[in-house]
Amino acid sequence: MIDETHDYARTSWVECANGHGEFPIQNLPFGVFSPGQERPRGGVAIGDQILDLAKAAASALLAGEAKIAAEAAAAATLNSFLALPAAARRALRRRLSDLLAAGAAEAGEVKTWLYSARDCTMHLPASIGDYTDFYAGIHHALNVGKQFRPDNPLLPNYKHVPIGYHGRASSIRVSGAEVRRPNGQRKAPDAEAPTFGPSQRVDLELELGIWVGQGNELGQPIPIGEASDHIAGLCLLNDWSARDLQAWEYQPLGPFLAKNFLTTISPWIVTTEALAPFRIAQAARPEGDPRPMDYLWDETDQASGGFALELEVFLSTRQMREQGLPAVRISQSAASHLYWTAAQMVAHHTAGGCDLRPGDLFGTGTISTPDDRGVGSLLELTRGGAQPITLPTGETRTFLQDGDELSLAGHARAEGRVSIGFGPCSGIVRG
Amino acid sequence: MIDETHDYARTSWVECANGHGEFPIQNLPFGVFSPGQERPRGGVAIGDQILDLAKAAASALLAGEAKIAAEAAAAATLNSFLALPAAARRALRRRLSDLLAAGAAEAGEVKTWLYSARDCTMHLPASIGDYTDFYAGIHHALNVGKQFRPDNPLLPNYKHVPIGYHGRASSIRVSGAEVRRPNGQRKAPDAEAPTFGPSQRVDLELELGIWVGQGNELGQPIPIGEASDHIAGLCLLNDWSARDLQAWEYQPLGPFLAKNFLTTISPWIVTTEALAPFRIAQAARPEGDPRPMDYLWDETDQASGGFALELEVFLSTRQMREQGLPAVRISQSAASHLYWTAAQMVAHHTAGGCDLRPGDLFGTGTISTPDDRGVGSLLELTRGGAQPITLPTGETRTFLQDGDELSLAGHARAEGRVSIGFGPCSGIVRG
Repeated sequence: MIDETHDYARTSWVECANGHGEFPIQNLPFGVFSPGQERPRGGVAIGDQILDLAKAAASALLAGEAKIAAEAAAAATLNSFLALPAAARRALRRRLSDLLAAGAAEAGEVKTWLYSARDCTMHLPASIGDYTDFYAGIHHALNVGKQFRPDNPLLPNYKHVPIGYHGRASSIRVSGAEVRRPNGQRKAPDAEAPTFGPSQRVDLELELGIWVGQGNELGQPIPIGEASDHIAGLCLLNDWSARDLQAWEYQPLGPFLAKNFLTTISPWIVTTEALAPFRIAQAARPEGDPRPMDYLWDETDQASGGFALELEVFLSTRQMREQGLPAVRISQSAASHLYWTAAQMVAHHTAGGCDLRPGDLFGTGTISTPDDRGVGSLLELTRGGAQPITLPTGETRTFLQDGDELSLAGHARAEGRVSIGFGPCSGIVRG
Repeated sequence: MIDETHDYARTSWVECANGHGEFPIQNLPFGVFSPGQERPRGGVAIGDQILDLAKAAASALLAGEAKIAAEAAAAATLNSFLALPAAARRALRRRLSDLLAAGAAEAGEVKTWLYSARDCTMHLPASIGDYTDFYAGIHHALNVGKQFRPDNPLLPNYKHVPIGYHGRASSIRVSGAEVRRPNGQRKAPDAEAPTFGPSQRVDLELELGIWVGQGNELGQPIPIGEASDHIAGLCLLNDWSARDLQAWEYQPLGPFLAKNFLTTISPWIVTTEALAPFRIAQAARPEGDPRPMDYLWDETDQASGGFALELEVFLSTRQMREQGLPAVRISQSAASHLYWTAAQMVAHHTAGGCDLRPGDLFGTGTISTPDDRGVGSLLELTRGGAQPITLPTGETRTFLQDGDELSLAGHARAEGRVSIGFGPCSGIVRG
């Protein structure tokens, strides 16, 4: 549904939003922030400002569904907001777009709802009931499969089942949280016994996060044709991974300590409404692959279930920062390399009756390109640590060292005119 | 710490509690209940009565730590109660034991806090932030390993790592919730392609649940010597499993739809205080097995980290119930067959920095005996469906059929005099 909120010619009286690479008036993502030391509440990013939804909810400028949505979003988490019908969320976004548009008569009052983002602290947008990590990046699955199972890189179920597993919700943090190198057990293939200590193979995983809006009752699957109404928006997600711990622990039930020490997300829910102009067919399923089973098949989803999103990974070492060198881009990928759509994930997750709740989070799995230009982990980029990369300082890296800062970035670009972004998703590794 | 609350000679003026097989005055488990249509609040089971902690909190009969604990437990979930220092929980239990003891002068007032359990609805004791399922039943791991990997039944990490994985929190329900047979993908080994439909291999898993009390901060592991203060109590847990879905989906990241359609628990938190007289050395680690690594080693835990608990599984088919036949016991196991202690699970879970939150739940993994008498799943009992069991009606079962009712029971018995139980943990399978 493309409407006036997507009009690329629309500008805002919030001047810094015009030409802003992440938060122009066409984006308007939702998050939770604290101005100074004040209590957390819902907000919307516009340029380098944050619009206070608690103030909006208390104003006479909102009515009907938009007001109900603002009232729900004025709380310290967005769970109640996400529980609303998608139509209410959309009504609020449309109203805010109008109020923030250049020439809006209400600008004087709305200006009093704005805070400089630099004076605010961002929080998790929602209390995350459950976090599920999928494995939909097929080139990542292939690359990793080659290392862990050379004879059998892509398992027979991969092209039939949107493989996913339950992740840890408690250790998800917004961008900026420090990455403490985890302790754990590891065992070299030729060692007699495992040892315990700090992971020597801390890695990133470049993923998208998918925020669940309205949930479903236990035992009531969400048909794929209705799945998109249950998806509120996206964020960036770094599924930090300790590869040495993972290799030793992951059989037979999957990764555990290797992943649950931290997951970092970008703080804003970039709505599916803002991303509506950037929907594309999922490109990663080549001709000749099995047709998705009926419960995963929907014509609209086949035609436009994917997202045209550019994804990047930047690395900056302590030495680089001391020398004033900018971060280097170590990966340039795109969401089009996902094998399964967000709607297919929702349909699969609930197919057996499992209930989703508003504010649940999915990870897509690591998104890698078929070539080396855009692999989403150092495990892939350095061939399991065998081929170090060299940085502008002459330093080399296989996995992350203490002091390294890792940042993800994501953008949807409309013919060079408007760019919609996700905000930061970064963390510095500490020993 | 054994005190007067464990005195086997102590009786209660609540007459039905004396000789009660599950809830004598020595138990006093915590849960959340609704009397009739009233709002949920914390309660304590005593015989076939439930003591209302909201009424207790409002009374002058409680003071100090006990009052603080009762106030926290008066809410609709026990999360705030579980977040208290263990000493506060213990103070409340001691005070309630005194108030309920035969001859207590306060009996007249306390009587007004009681409801007949039969007129009440039980709820989940806490909002479960994260659910983790361990795999500490070594005989189950061996039995299942033989079926899935005949050449390699027990993986090399098993005796070093308390293997666990993240489960689904949203689909946990208390006893009585119906078990809807899940849909999902399955593929026979000789089939060309998978099919989608109702699982034909719905199974139970006999487990204990472990309730987390106080949590820890991200990045701050809980040393094993302090772990027991973070464990509030136990429950029964049935990790319903769809074996056909599991076999097809579980590689490489573990079970997903095969487990997340429902997990049933008994509604009461049987406290570690009530179980204090039933602590034993964990028996399942034979001589010659590797010594647990330092972060998993604690002398007290080695000596008394286990629980002397009898566990049973009962099956009743629709036909059996129609013929007035009692449920048959299909398994008789014991918690002593766990390879890892609850404290080792806490220490391992947090070793890499992962944070636990009050009200988190662990499953121990399926608890099977070394022989056939007490295996904790039909997968084991019927050798993967190859050897059906015969029931008193002449019916046979490999896996569960629609109409089958499956119940778990757990008891700690003190020399035949006092028996502490968990309450029901059952569900009927529906197509």
